[in-house]
Amino acid sequence: MTADDASADDADSDLDLDLVELAKRRGFFFQANGAYGGVAGFYVYGPQGASLKRNLEDAWRDRFVTREGHVEIDAPTVMPEAVFEASGHLDGFDDMIVECPECGESHRADHLVEDATDIEEAESIPTDEVEALIAERDLRCPTCGTALADVPVSEFNLMFGTNIGPGTSSPGYLRPETAQGIFAEFPRLKEYARGQLPFGVAQIGRAYRNEISPRRALVRVREFTQAELEHFVDPERDDPDLERVADVELPLYAAPDQEREEGSVEVLTVREAVAENVITSEWVAYYLGVATRWYERIGVDMDRFRFRQHLSGELAHYASDCWDAETEIDGNWVEVTGFAYRGDYDLSKHAEHSDEEFTVFRQYDEPVTVERATVDPDMSYLGPEFAGAAADVADALEDLAAEAPDAFGGEDVTVEVGGEPYVVPVEKTGFGVEEVTESGEHVTPHVVEPSFGVGRLVYTVLEHAYREDEVDGERRSYLELPPELAPTTVGVFPLMDKDGLGDRAREVADDLRAAGLSVTYDDSGAIGRRYRRQDEIGTPYCVTVDYDSLEDDTVTLRDRDSTAQVRVPIDELPGRIAALRAGGGTEFADVGDPVDGGAGAGVD
Amino acid sequence: MTADDASADDADSDLDLDLVELAKRRGFFFQANGAYGGVAGFYVYGPQGASLKRNLEDAWRDRFVTREGHVEIDAPTVMPEAVFEASGHLDGFDDMIVECPECGESHRADHLVEDATDIEEAESIPTDEVEALIAERDLRCPTCGTALADVPVSEFNLMFGTNIGPGTSSPGYLRPETAQGIFAEFPRLKEYARGQLPFGVAQIGRAYRNEISPRRALVRVREFTQAELEHFVDPERDDPDLERVADVELPLYAAPDQEREEGSVEVLTVREAVAENVITSEWVAYYLGVATRWYERIGVDMDRFRFRQHLSGELAHYASDCWDAETEIDGNWVEVTGFAYRGDYDLSKHAEHSDEEFTVFRQYDEPVTVERATVDPDMSYLGPEFAGAAADVADALEDLAAEAPDAFGGEDVTVEVGGEPYVVPVEKTGFGVEEVTESGEHVTPHVVEPSFGVGRLVYTVLEHAYREDEVDGERRSYLELPPELAPTTVGVFPLMDKDGLGDRAREVADDLRAAGLSVTYDDSGAIGRRYRRQDEIGTPYCVTVDYDSLEDDTVTLRDRDSTAQVRVPIDELPGRIAALRAGGGTEFADVGDPVDGGAGAGVD
Repeated sequence: MTADDASADDADSDLDLDLVELAKRRGFFFQANGAYGGVAGFYVYGPQGASLKRNLEDAWRDRFVTREGHVEIDAPTVMPEAVFEASGHLDGFDDMIVECPECGESHRADHLVEDATDIEEAESIPTDEVEALIAERDLRCPTCGTALADVPVSEFNLMFGTNIGPGTSSPGYLRPETAQGIFAEFPRLKEYARGQLPFGVAQIGRAYRNEISPRRALVRVREFTQAELEHFVDPERDDPDLERVADVELPLYAAPDQEREEGSVEVLTVREAVAENVITSEWVAYYLGVATRWYERIGVDMDRFRFRQHLSGELAHYASDCWDAETEIDGNWVEVTGFAYRGDYDLSKHAEHSDEEFTVFRQYDEPVTVERATVDPDMSYLGPEFAGAAADVADALEDLAAEAPDAFGGEDVTVEVGGEPYVVPVEKTGFGVEEVTESGEHVTPHVVEPSFGVGRLVYTVLEHAYREDEVDGERRSYLELPPELAPTTVGVFPLMDKDGLGDRAREVADDLRAAGLSVTYDDSGAIGRRYRRQDEIGTPYCVTVDYDSLEDDTVTLRDRDSTAQVRVPIDELPGRIAALRAGGGTEFADVGDPVDGGAGAGVD
Repeated sequence: MTADDASADDADSDLDLDLVELAKRRGFFFQANGAYGGVAGFYVYGPQGASLKRNLEDAWRDRFVTREGHVEIDAPTVMPEAVFEASGHLDGFDDMIVECPECGESHRADHLVEDATDIEEAESIPTDEVEALIAERDLRCPTCGTALADVPVSEFNLMFGTNIGPGTSSPGYLRPETAQGIFAEFPRLKEYARGQLPFGVAQIGRAYRNEISPRRALVRVREFTQAELEHFVDPERDDPDLERVADVELPLYAAPDQEREEGSVEVLTVREAVAENVITSEWVAYYLGVATRWYERIGVDMDRFRFRQHLSGELAHYASDCWDAETEIDGNWVEVTGFAYRGDYDLSKHAEHSDEEFTVFRQYDEPVTVERATVDPDMSYLGPEFAGAAADVADALEDLAAEAPDAFGGEDVTVEVGGEPYVVPVEKTGFGVEEVTESGEHVTPHVVEPSFGVGRLVYTVLEHAYREDEVDGERRSYLELPPELAPTTVGVFPLMDKDGLGDRAREVADDLRAAGLSVTYDDSGAIGRRYRRQDEIGTPYCVTVDYDSLEDDTVTLRDRDSTAQVRVPIDELPGRIAALRAGGGTEFADVGDPVDGGAGAGVD
């Protein structure tokens, strides 16, 4: 459960409008249903955005599923009410709203209070106190200015509700987090892990929150994509392999630092953070380390990044320690991932509310012999003696033997059924103690959860990659996306579509596609304009086929960031671009011969 | 819009229970929320199923998006009511239901009629006639046997409804097809295509239908995944490149054949089907050809496959020709894809209901000079003369000039406003005819739609891949999945986890992973049992590391289907398995040296 991100709640006026405009114009993302006036909180990923998002999801899958040896499932987004009774969402997943009696607009009451006071997390204040604060400060409707004093503040459940089948007898909800689709299926999933801890189950999919005030493009939306990993561990036996990430440096904004006036982010290695007990869960520390490397890989600007610990009042009731990865977007800190040690909360709740076991069997190192008290009540005595209550009395005797065998030490034993005491002679209970050999015990796994907001990461990556510079005296905007994430890896252009240049360029494009690269062919407009188009969508490499290409089978390969150009043999092209995309030390200048300025294809 | 598949509506008793049991046991799919008693129509893809589904989606994307040069978007699943008013789903997307007055169960009234009569498509019969048929045949509640005569049959909308934001003033629905997320965004999407037809926009995502009677595992569910392509074409100018698929043989079950007693599937090439006008839309014919090759690629048994043309009564009102790809599963024909020529229906409806243009500008070959009648009403006359109606009269004059300029031939002209005639002297209308040069015209694109049901294809592929045979005298069940689709490409086993065999095997597994292959490492149980485990999930290749491997750096590579084994040098392994997976003529026997029976690792 990714907690709400209060610091993201600033006005839309903070948005990076250049980026939002570029995102819309170039097909990254835009508000949905524009032809119908739009509906707040719903966004479409256009052709570039859908591709970037998929690449980001693949990079996540590679790191957090495949390389960690976890598995991934794909569960429904609509789930029945019973699941959310168990998870606590039905009762507790609320926002405080106040509806203006004049204009009818609903507002987040806690946000009104935060805007008008020094309070940072008004969400955790009881409703009546929020009402009092609104009255005391004479807060007004942001839409029409009407006074909101004495207007009741109510709780609004953030789940989208619906009905499954005809009628209203089977309510369902759009899941507010992908996690519940994993927790609720634990009894099945543990079978696939052959009942052995630890194991991790991941899911990338839609989740929904009926936000009162969606805002800031992809930051606070009503429908979004999460990538969540639920790592089930034995709290007594399983430890992470901390050595693998021990030296990773974490920019930590711990709770005490947030509470001190002068507190600020402190950089500690994973090893130090655990040794100094700044991070209490080793599992959480492990994932902060893994994730830090991954954020670097996907192009997050680590100078605009921090891990913020939840304050005690902010902690969800189930989580003992929780850290948010936050990125700076448009000048605000935005939560992009929540890392929580959830203990056995989720599985225990589902065990309590359902009929299945949410435990695994933990084998002892050696079988253990224990004494166990049992009863075998004489029903031919209990029956006539207690009539209709006899069976219940027998059950009560069984429970008592298990819980307090000493009670059978005298001549009689007393059990309570339906509030009435029943006295039974011990000799009629068949009480005895036997030795039993047990090979293990049932334990409820604990859960470590890294929960990523995919849309917020897409937005971060775009914002952190956005650059402006000047090329040949003209202003240029481009996206410095890592090649792994770029929607298109190579743009292929003929200098012009004549004299066989177009055909040759199409062949080059086909070869590159056959090598598994994402390729765009473009023959319209001046070469410089075609470069700009690719720059704006973050295409890291462009290939130009010119008259020399027809002679010597080489092409110009151009680097997005430096605009440097080299000459590469056509048959070497797929391999060299693949090497550049894979990273690993291949430098652009090394993949071909330098191009002198001034040649036809050399124009940028 | 994939039409309902009536023929799939047989009882669950037809299910292939071996397969459903294997699917659950091995983690392909299982009913969701089992701990809470389950909810009909919702399924979870387990670790194997999610991987198979993703591989199938990737194969679809490769064929229908990348190789066709189309783009893909990712739009929200919750959409506002206005979209479905336009699309017709709000009014027309209904099932007929009858609720038993005794037990309260709801049933599909049309299905009851179909089960009891020879009628095959009762869906198209009016409600009152269905009521009459129920009474006439004395049909009874399938659950409790109560007579349903005189019980009203009602229409039940199949969309899941919800509310966006607090209150009920902004109703929304879970999209019943991914297509609407493309149609509604057409004004934006055409910009990304630079306003040029033809272009195609695809989407793979969730869609929802609140089925009355979900059944047959993945066949009729309430939440499912679609892969839809909306190909926007100029009906007068764009033609498909039929030559690319002209020789593909299509098993066609045309409407006339379905209506004749002895009619059956006829195999025609795409060329013949178009020439003989069996398929009227060349675009539909093109996609049937492309799809046929793709079904073969993903492992559909083409002996249990056909294209069935919609009967005239079954055709959606917007579609002029519609063919379903059907596969035989569990002995029934099930629609897995709908191919429809939808004309301009969808875009016209959205244009009508919204404020945006759903057209593209079609450039003429040569600019055309046309005469255009215009008016410029003298408001100083109209104002005093017609008072409050003056502006409307001016508008009416403008419309009349465009539609019937001849009306301005006399001295007066009469227009109607609010049912009243208004007579205006022509000289006060400013009527004139001018010559205008037009470079093109606005046209509403037509839509060709192949719409794939991903879950039904997953189920088909599993069912068609399921095999039983005998190996070494033991019954074996395995999945003959194409290597491209198999959840795991290679299983890697040490003969046992000692003497360094485990470490060597883990190195081999890492090398294979680094080559981009999906790998499972397994060291538990006898080798034969580990083979069986991989056979059951369709892993095409297994590698065993034995004592010889430590000496000569070779391993045993085993083929799932033939259980043949060859010896391969470890450093050649990634390349050879990748070649096998890619297909293209590499034979298993050619990738290594034959293994004699009886060697340790040779045991199967």
